[in-house]
Amino acid sequence: MISLEIPSLYQIFDFVGTLAFAISGTRLAAAKHFDWFGAYVVGVTTAIGGGTLRDVLLGVTPFWMTAPIYLIFSGIALVWVVVFRKYLVKQNNTWFLFDAIGLALFTVAGLQKALQLDFPYWVAIMMGTMTGAAGGVLRDVLINEVPLIFRKEIYAIACIIGGLAFMVLDWLKFGTEVTAISSGLIVLLVRILAVKYNLSLPMLKDEDQPSPDEESRK
Amino acid sequence: MISLEIPSLYQIFDFVGTLAFAISGTRLAAAKHFDWFGAYVVGVTTAIGGGTLRDVLLGVTPFWMTAPIYLIFSGIALVWVVVFRKYLVKQNNTWFLFDAIGLALFTVAGLQKALQLDFPYWVAIMMGTMTGAAGGVLRDVLINEVPLIFRKEIYAIACIIGGLAFMVLDWLKFGTEVTAISSGLIVLLVRILAVKYNLSLPMLKDEDQPSPDEESRK
Amino acid sequence: MISLEIPSLYQIFDFVGTLAFAISGTRLAAAKHFDWFGAYVVGVTTAIGGGTLRDVLLGVTPFWMTAPIYLIFSGIALVWVVVFRKYLVKQNNTWFLFDAIGLALFTVAGLQKALQLDFPYWVAIMMGTMTGAAGGVLRDVLINEVPLIFRKEIYAIACIIGGLAFMVLDWLKFGTEVTAISSGLIVLLVRILAVKYNLSLPMLKDEDQPSPDEESRK
Repeated sequence: MISLEIPSLYQIFDFVGTLAFAISGTRLAAAKHFDWFGAYVVGVTTAIGGGTLRDVLLGVTPFWMTAPIYLIFSGIALVWVVVFRKYLVKQNNTWFLFDAIGLALFTVAGLQKALQLDFPYWVAIMMGTMTGAAGGVLRDVLINEVPLIFRKEIYAIACIIGGLAFMVLDWLKFGTEVTAISSGLIVLLVRILAVKYNLSLPMLKDEDQPSPDEESRK
Repeated sequence: MISLEIPSLYQIFDFVGTLAFAISGTRLAAAKHFDWFGAYVVGVTTAIGGGTLRDVLLGVTPFWMTAPIYLIFSGIALVWVVVFRKYLVKQNNTWFLFDAIGLALFTVAGLQKALQLDFPYWVAIMMGTMTGAAGGVLRDVLINEVPLIFRKEIYAIACIIGGLAFMVLDWLKFGTEVTAISSGLIVLLVRILAVKYNLSLPMLKDEDQPSPDEESRK
Repeated sequence: MISLEIPSLYQIFDFVGTLAFAISGTRLAAAKHFDWFGAYVVGVTTAIGGGTLRDVLLGVTPFWMTAPIYLIFSGIALVWVVVFRKYLVKQNNTWFLFDAIGLALFTVAGLQKALQLDFPYWVAIMMGTMTGAAGGVLRDVLINEVPLIFRKEIYAIACIIGGLAFMVLDWLKFGTEVTAISSGLIVLLVRILAVKYNLSLPMLKDEDQPSPDEESRK
């Protein structure tokens, strides 16, 4: 089932990103004392959830249903978290970098898939952002937390900036490869700078008085 | 991209409803201290979530992927909440009315779309109700709250009553326009009366003893 | 709409399972003081959510949109919970058995549907597990709780074991009926043994130090 060919750089980055996404989900599930099955489901949802939502909206078969490698890498992530539990914090910088590489690659891949299906650029940028960022939202819904990327430093915005760069570079007639690689690097760069300098979007301020809706929630 | 033609009354109500739905999501996101991106995602999910669920279940391309106007109106909603933060409570009656107009229009539009795809009436009424009410459920899942419409005054029931009215009027051979407008007005009326007289469905009573499931949750 | 033919044993088990799943959702909604509409939505989501997710991923029309019987049985579940509120705890063993029968039947039905659409076995086992277990996850998302099956005794694992048994029996050239019935019985047996002997998967241990993600959540 797994071919013995040497994987391309694209494939290596794809697997590294899948692993990093799945590990982020599995770690948060561990913090909530999920069992192995629950932790696997949260890990796999983090890794493939964004691309699945994209494919369902685009009306095509979800990408992971044609190749078991994504489920296998999510399983490796589970074993990794179990075995290296005590060392995960020390690996934080590595996993952050792998996560950012995944974010970059998934964004560009999602964008290109939408363009190939003849959707306009504004849909493609949204699909790219969803591919990169929606898995983390689904992860947080499953562990019953407010989605982290709605409150923390820049994450999905990196995907949007990369997507806009892709559109401009494509419009300027750079080739497919240059356009894809450059915009992926922009996602990566924005994400790294955001964490390094703790950049975040402004928060919305609460209204001075509670709205009726708010009151009825209490 | 935006045509300069004069919008029809249908389009005006569609935009007004989209704006009202998006503002309801954005306000709740603000109360949870989301950042601008998170608030936009919650607003857009509230506005287009119901119709997206409907279209995915019907097996057609989600409506908002063919016209960027829904994403634009959700952006206007975000700006509105930021700029008019201090005045939103005073605007409550207006936004309630716009929300009810949206509920009516989305319900009828969802119902008609299912009928056009040759689904039977019971599916169409469900799709209409989903188009009107499911966006609010998805909003509450994203902000990690128990869905408001499962506990508060009549909301989705207004969609169901309007849907049943549509079926009866259609069966009585009223024309398409009379049927659609009348049943939309019924949704609007039921929703306004429900809030004015604080009408709600009976709550389910808890069991006297906790069930085993309940116990294990503690 | 409902035919007067004598239902097959398959249909009886299908309805019994639907009823048990819907009752589990409705009871949890009652414990959260949902109104009748909310309780019905949670019940119906528990009953048809897994199969709906499966059908959306497989790219076919959700099964319940072609026959209203599933919505009707969810309505019966609501009435049952309202009427027999005081006796539900005493009925726990019965409903547990019916729930396990539903789990077995839904798993095998989901698996067979994926195989009929020419997906490979690893996809089919996943679809079977999803058909059986994902409705409960969606139920817990709607009532804003951490999904029970990610932390409690063996549930989805019973589906996976039954799915693997199906694959082996099919490979050994047992006929369709023997394969389907045997693997369904295996799901049922594993589930009953899991509850009787309180079998569960190991939990993931928390990391010794909080990860940066965890810290920022506090």
